Amino acid sequence: MNKVNLAEKLAMIGGHWTPRIVGELNGQHVNLVKFQGEFVWHDHGDEDELFLVLKGGFRMEFRDRSVELTVGAFLIVPKGVEHRPVAIEEVEGMRFEPAAIQYIGEVDSPMTVRNWERI
Amino acid sequence: MNKVNLAEKLAMIGGHWTPRIVGELNGQHVNLVKFQGEFVWHDHGDEDELFLVLKGGFRMEFRDRSVELTVGAFLIVPKGVEHRPVAIEEVEGMRFEPAAIQYIGEVDSPMTVRNWERI
Repeated sequence: MNKVNLAEKLAMIGGHWTPRIVGELNGQHVNLVKFQGEFVWHDHGDEDELFLVLKGGFRMEFRDRSVELTVGAFLIVPKGVEHRPVAIEEVEGMRFEPAAIQYIGEVDSPMTVRNWERI
Repeated sequence: MNKVNLAEKLAMIGGHWTPRIVGELNGQHVNLVKFQGEFVWHDHGDEDELFLVLKGGFRMEFRDRSVELTVGAFLIVPKGVEHRPVAIEEVEGMRFEPAAIQYIGEVDSPMTVRNWERI
């Protein structure tokens, strides 16, 4: 029951594309991530994923369209839907998702980091 | 897969203490709420609850201590733990919790609203 200050946690995060876990409830994780550039196409077979933008903005690409997200907006990517985040500038964001999601869909790539650290 | 702008949704909310549902994933709801004053003591028997402050600040009281929360901070209240939010000024916040939590613990009070609207 300790409070979590998002700015303090974000200041602890170096590098891109590796979420850090900052909370857990009901089998779900809250994590924070920084990223810039293009990620790989992937999906999460059994997990819906919410992404809330805290800094910057980016384009979430789907196979048939894309959605532009800016600070204070969130998007829920349903399970099984292929997506790829693309960010021109650095983005900071908060995610809600099942604890199992760190094993990222069926994709292996150099950008894929597993067993996320808790901060 | 539509984006949700928090400020737009918050502008649609009148009154206090009644969450509005703005997203659902993995059996969990994302909801937004405005409040001011003291709520009733209550707990949620089977649901952990996350509260993120978007505007203002408040004190979350527990039976043995309290936690002051300000913008950009969140708190997870574990299942079964009695709590009572107390806000001097109006607070806007985002909550993340199981869909079932709108049936608020075991407490009935004039402040308890069930079957929350989706906006």
